[in-house]
Amino acid sequence: MKRSEAHAAYTGTRKVTEDLCAPLKTEDYVIQSIPDVSPPKWHLGHTSWFFERVILHKYTEGYQPVDERYYFVFNSYYQSFGDRVARDIRGTLSRPTVEEVYAYRKVIDERIGRLLDSLKDDIWPEVASLLELGLHHEQQHQELLVTDVKHNLAMNPLRPSYREAAGTGNEPGRTIAASAYLPVEGGIIAVGAGAEGFAWDNERPRHQLLISDFGIMNRVVTCGEYLEFTQDGGYENPLLWLSDGWDTATQESWKAPLYWEKIEGEWLVMTLSGLRSIDPLEPVAHVSYYEAAAYARWADKRLPTEVEWERAAEFYDCSSHPGTFLDDGVYHPVPCAHGSRPGVGNQLHQMLGDVWEWTGSAYLPYPGYKQERGPLGEYNGKFMSNQMVLRGGSCATPRNHIRMTYRNFFKPEKRWQFTGFRLASDSV
Amino acid sequence: MKRSEAHAAYTGTRKVTEDLCAPLKTEDYVIQSIPDVSPPKWHLGHTSWFFERVILHKYTEGYQPVDERYYFVFNSYYQSFGDRVARDIRGTLSRPTVEEVYAYRKVIDERIGRLLDSLKDDIWPEVASLLELGLHHEQQHQELLVTDVKHNLAMNPLRPSYREAAGTGNEPGRTIAASAYLPVEGGIIAVGAGAEGFAWDNERPRHQLLISDFGIMNRVVTCGEYLEFTQDGGYENPLLWLSDGWDTATQESWKAPLYWEKIEGEWLVMTLSGLRSIDPLEPVAHVSYYEAAAYARWADKRLPTEVEWERAAEFYDCSSHPGTFLDDGVYHPVPCAHGSRPGVGNQLHQMLGDVWEWTGSAYLPYPGYKQERGPLGEYNGKFMSNQMVLRGGSCATPRNHIRMTYRNFFKPEKRWQFTGFRLASDSV
Amino acid sequence: MKRSEAHAAYTGTRKVTEDLCAPLKTEDYVIQSIPDVSPPKWHLGHTSWFFERVILHKYTEGYQPVDERYYFVFNSYYQSFGDRVARDIRGTLSRPTVEEVYAYRKVIDERIGRLLDSLKDDIWPEVASLLELGLHHEQQHQELLVTDVKHNLAMNPLRPSYREAAGTGNEPGRTIAASAYLPVEGGIIAVGAGAEGFAWDNERPRHQLLISDFGIMNRVVTCGEYLEFTQDGGYENPLLWLSDGWDTATQESWKAPLYWEKIEGEWLVMTLSGLRSIDPLEPVAHVSYYEAAAYARWADKRLPTEVEWERAAEFYDCSSHPGTFLDDGVYHPVPCAHGSRPGVGNQLHQMLGDVWEWTGSAYLPYPGYKQERGPLGEYNGKFMSNQMVLRGGSCATPRNHIRMTYRNFFKPEKRWQFTGFRLASDSV
Amino acid sequence: MKRSEAHAAYTGTRKVTEDLCAPLKTEDYVIQSIPDVSPPKWHLGHTSWFFERVILHKYTEGYQPVDERYYFVFNSYYQSFGDRVARDIRGTLSRPTVEEVYAYRKVIDERIGRLLDSLKDDIWPEVASLLELGLHHEQQHQELLVTDVKHNLAMNPLRPSYREAAGTGNEPGRTIAASAYLPVEGGIIAVGAGAEGFAWDNERPRHQLLISDFGIMNRVVTCGEYLEFTQDGGYENPLLWLSDGWDTATQESWKAPLYWEKIEGEWLVMTLSGLRSIDPLEPVAHVSYYEAAAYARWADKRLPTEVEWERAAEFYDCSSHPGTFLDDGVYHPVPCAHGSRPGVGNQLHQMLGDVWEWTGSAYLPYPGYKQERGPLGEYNGKFMSNQMVLRGGSCATPRNHIRMTYRNFFKPEKRWQFTGFRLASDSV
Repeated sequence: MKRSEAHAAYTGTRKVTEDLCAPLKTEDYVIQSIPDVSPPKWHLGHTSWFFERVILHKYTEGYQPVDERYYFVFNSYYQSFGDRVARDIRGTLSRPTVEEVYAYRKVIDERIGRLLDSLKDDIWPEVASLLELGLHHEQQHQELLVTDVKHNLAMNPLRPSYREAAGTGNEPGRTIAASAYLPVEGGIIAVGAGAEGFAWDNERPRHQLLISDFGIMNRVVTCGEYLEFTQDGGYENPLLWLSDGWDTATQESWKAPLYWEKIEGEWLVMTLSGLRSIDPLEPVAHVSYYEAAAYARWADKRLPTEVEWERAAEFYDCSSHPGTFLDDGVYHPVPCAHGSRPGVGNQLHQMLGDVWEWTGSAYLPYPGYKQERGPLGEYNGKFMSNQMVLRGGSCATPRNHIRMTYRNFFKPEKRWQFTGFRLASDSV
Repeated sequence: MKRSEAHAAYTGTRKVTEDLCAPLKTEDYVIQSIPDVSPPKWHLGHTSWFFERVILHKYTEGYQPVDERYYFVFNSYYQSFGDRVARDIRGTLSRPTVEEVYAYRKVIDERIGRLLDSLKDDIWPEVASLLELGLHHEQQHQELLVTDVKHNLAMNPLRPSYREAAGTGNEPGRTIAASAYLPVEGGIIAVGAGAEGFAWDNERPRHQLLISDFGIMNRVVTCGEYLEFTQDGGYENPLLWLSDGWDTATQESWKAPLYWEKIEGEWLVMTLSGLRSIDPLEPVAHVSYYEAAAYARWADKRLPTEVEWERAAEFYDCSSHPGTFLDDGVYHPVPCAHGSRPGVGNQLHQMLGDVWEWTGSAYLPYPGYKQERGPLGEYNGKFMSNQMVLRGGSCATPRNHIRMTYRNFFKPEKRWQFTGFRLASDSV
Repeated sequence: MKRSEAHAAYTGTRKVTEDLCAPLKTEDYVIQSIPDVSPPKWHLGHTSWFFERVILHKYTEGYQPVDERYYFVFNSYYQSFGDRVARDIRGTLSRPTVEEVYAYRKVIDERIGRLLDSLKDDIWPEVASLLELGLHHEQQHQELLVTDVKHNLAMNPLRPSYREAAGTGNEPGRTIAASAYLPVEGGIIAVGAGAEGFAWDNERPRHQLLISDFGIMNRVVTCGEYLEFTQDGGYENPLLWLSDGWDTATQESWKAPLYWEKIEGEWLVMTLSGLRSIDPLEPVAHVSYYEAAAYARWADKRLPTEVEWERAAEFYDCSSHPGTFLDDGVYHPVPCAHGSRPGVGNQLHQMLGDVWEWTGSAYLPYPGYKQERGPLGEYNGKFMSNQMVLRGGSCATPRNHIRMTYRNFFKPEKRWQFTGFRLASDSV
Repeated sequence: MKRSEAHAAYTGTRKVTEDLCAPLKTEDYVIQSIPDVSPPKWHLGHTSWFFERVILHKYTEGYQPVDERYYFVFNSYYQSFGDRVARDIRGTLSRPTVEEVYAYRKVIDERIGRLLDSLKDDIWPEVASLLELGLHHEQQHQELLVTDVKHNLAMNPLRPSYREAAGTGNEPGRTIAASAYLPVEGGIIAVGAGAEGFAWDNERPRHQLLISDFGIMNRVVTCGEYLEFTQDGGYENPLLWLSDGWDTATQESWKAPLYWEKIEGEWLVMTLSGLRSIDPLEPVAHVSYYEAAAYARWADKRLPTEVEWERAAEFYDCSSHPGTFLDDGVYHPVPCAHGSRPGVGNQLHQMLGDVWEWTGSAYLPYPGYKQERGPLGEYNGKFMSNQMVLRGGSCATPRNHIRMTYRNFFKPEKRWQFTGFRLASDSV
């Protein structure tokens, strides 16, 4: 980041977070429906804490914390930064109030502004790097904020809406591309982020691998397709499932994706704009890795590895087929809107946006990965067990946050994110 | 209740509830620190639901609920009234908002007002009885509201204060009456509420019993006295404890009453006015039955039975030595303020107010008790297992809510209410 | 106990325990189906430990334990005697082996024998008292051994039988006395064990009470009667249940008493002689207090208090109508076998034997009860919370172990003992 | 397997299982210390069930099960074969008895013998394949039997010994090879089992990969080396740990490997021959993946991937440096016994035997892996989530059971197997 762009980048990103909160009632800022979810006011505080604890605390001479108790209240999981409020009781704290949290944000913003103005040039690159990190961190919490609000509202028996969605182009008579498997050439390929530009440490180093030819679905799996799996007894047949997946599905009484509910014989889905009928053409979302894997086995296919996914994205030109992002203000995945164009079946759609795509790859370090020793070494590396990689971002991801090399990760049973999938095959 | 007094009684009681909420921030209305505790806005809604579901629903022709989903959201435990939100997730609901809940209260108040005006005289006695019940119910929730707010705030690492307390008379140089056991004559005595006036069903029928002479402490046990138990290894010696009590104390790592915390060698206590030093002369509060029983065994005494407690209250004239009530605006038990008066050691203090007193009696039906068949039969009767009786009300009880025959009850491990105790002895 | 009778009493009681184990396979001695249940070899070891730890350890000069690790392995819950194996993992210990445990018993028996021979007369009364206690303790474990074996075998999918039962007199065409409520006079009465003879500390002191007239069922409730409750939706109607009871029944999916299972439309019951049809005339057993209380509410009656139960047993002459005991070798409650006799409906049957009878009384100290300070103070007193009193012994109780004043106690949700009930009424 | 060898192979393998049980007391066959562990008699029954259910049931005309209830009792996790006893209550079943289980084994052995004699040649290859599978399955349970017995005995406060170990060559004055990193060439390599010979489906297909040069430790990490990590605060420093690992270590209060216990300042270790001092030269065992990963981070190294491990085993000639196997009768890992030989530091030791080695690879399908549709498709494929790959077998693995391509897998928190590790480095 250039020094001249820092102010605008900082201000712009911080504003998006607050804009996302505009439809919230004060009460909505406080609650936490499940331990995975954090209260919106915690997100607002934690992202500010990050700038304070990582940058201001270190680069401001004689720094006095805004409130030193916030160091405890707003730390997420950084052991390097001391103790913290247990994750699962974040929703039991009424104080600091929403107003106090906004005031905290404001002070941090002012202090960051002053720091940016006063820093000497020789220290700038170091701070620039942390600032960039902090802004990407803030963007991650923008996505979490939206998905957490969705869960909080969806668990409420009143099923309140977050906000009216922008038009989704789901016009009557529309079609989408038929499902097809596109051939991708294997060989010695390279994946991962290069040395230039911002990327998380877990995307690096770029490295070479040898893979075979494979086929990949031209778009993500839809609700209509997923409904077939459901109606074919997908949730009743243990032989389709991973063993841990079956145990989870049984204990949790899963019968459909999260947010689907059958009312008087019809499947409805809870969205950020309220409860409505399922659209068979839109991407299925809020499924776990276990459900994606069971679907794949039912379809006699498999999930792509993360390497295959990244390779396919390079092999085909995907940039002209963007999916839906946070910036679009839809807050829900949208049907692949290319049904009527000729040749559309031979293009790779929705690689970015709409839904995070589960891959068949465990979240592990790339060859040559070095986990940093300092606090930022806790950012990604310590989560490299029991998680699966997801690729491509979702309708809740800021458009300029995502990259083809981006590696997201969740435990295989998690469903509260906008998680979907596409299939792959060994041959085409 | 006379018809002419109904409006004022209703309005006055309802207003107290709202006044108690005056110091709360919107965020404070939403949270639930533990399943025992309910969010303040739930209390506001539930007490209104009670009037709607029990009175308006039945006595208003063609009644339309304010919002029929509130029948589900604000039901507490009445199986007769259908399903309800699980108790332990009340704090995950941001909606209805605080404003909507107050609006709900207002509509209910208006409808109750209209009903009171329009009811025919022949139906009035029936409604009057339910109205009185509803007001006593509301008063119970006033106490819960205060104790729940206390827990919610005390669990917050910022230790926020609810409101500045009114003066407590804890002047320097003050003394309290020395502990003494007052003799009470036994024989054939009667306990329980008579047929006249309001009382809960569990206080009836008044009935005769034969008891022996006994002695009872002239006031409740103080923090200073309790501290001796603590310092004498009371929490480390299993032989002092009931078996279930020891298991609980071990699992929960109890080392002192709830809300006590040792900071730099000093015991502090969290109050509704914030964290402060322990006052050795004030009543110990927030102890479980298990702790009260362990203390009694350590002191080689016992807890009084509820019958003895009620007998003692009749045998001595207690009406001139009131303790502290909700109306006093102190929100904390106060030292027995009679230290300097002559003969004060021969008087029975604090029987009402300050702290609920654990008795050695299990909560069971009185001889001849009949549990009603309808919904109100669920009010008290179905809780008659695994609970101990407490007597006398506390500093969070409205003064006109409490009676000498009043039977409160909690499970023996509960500590979040203002619960203390006095001792008894077989001989004096 | 006279010194001359001590040897025979000791030897006889110890032999009963071992005789009860005769049908067991080695494997049956080891297992523990649930934490409430103990492995038979643990019972064998623990009862020997009791004589060693309480008597030999103290009264043998320079005593050397048989194996000092057994002090840890075979302690049940005596904090005074140090640490112990956690109750819920007793079934994970294969060693000491059954053979080693029998060898341990044998050594203890020899040492007790030698001690009895060598004790000086002045110390004898003290030891005699402990010996008597130890033998009553052993008898309690005889009952537990039978009920624990029953649970262990009943949980096994092979449903193995413990032993063929002696004939139960369940001849075709038999009848039992019709249910009737016998009037009992109230007034000032006395209950509890007098100063003479053996009794547990919790049965003392004998004391006076004032009670009203009441009615009590002439026999215990039968399976046939209980089945009516079941068929009338007793397990589906929360309004019949205590609140805690309903929660337990729901969580545990109770649909009938423990050991009942419906196979192809018929209710079968698992007994110590295997699985067989329910006999509608035999007492219902293995119900919790919650089920007894729900049945009573369904029947518009109530359970007797323990005082009423004891009063009724004195008021009527029950000694000529004994129920079934361990000594009878039936190991199952037996129908009240007096159906054809004239006037039998006016007699009080089955007060002793067949099934322990839940009363409506919480297990609390009698007025004037003093809990001992030493280890034996842990025997009864520390369990005086969260338990209900049962009276009368069962088909698994040794005949000479039970008394009309005997107070047994279990938590209200427990069902693995032979627990049944009879009803009472306020008027007859 | 040739038809002529089938009898001997079957008989020999089955005999090993029973020989391993020779030191057990009847009681030892019954217990289950934790859900991961199964009772020895269950292993004996389940391995027989496998031959009955998979072979006899299908290839014997008009087959009558030995006891059809065993189909339920001895099924492990095969959904294809119907319901089963829940895994965590296997230790609550006293029946079938040990004698009955041995009788069951004997009947199965006879029936398999008769089947082998009577099968037509055209069906033989199909059965031969299943028989071979069944024998490898039996060998897996031989290892589990030993490790389960170890856990069962080690949890017993008497710390009983399984059997005296054969000499381990731990002579005084001995040395082992110093730790060194051997260079391994990368490039395009192949891993996995080829088409010939027995291998599990998860080892196939053999496939090519591109890897970089790396270094690998010449032997596994020793207790002495691991003790340094422990003494350097390894268990107190969260920054060394994976996040899930730290959570587990904290909850379980891990301070050292499983089976280590500090008594009077000295670290002892429980072995199958009883409790003894730690030998600093012997391989560390019974560590979780989390501990191995924390150690690696502490040492500034990493675990090898399973591909690197297999490549290293091919690159160096390991066949002349065998470790210790079940056949050696030591039942414990043994120090790398090559300390005095010249050049030994340049050889790769202990790749097979002694301890299973955690790799840094998640257990996932190889490219081109196809999970079978039938019951045997449940054998490996359904466990491909949340597990890490281990390589090389242990001192409890039969020598002829292990291969360089063998992929074992456990969840990262598991410690009851003989699990250790060696380190790798990116450069040498």
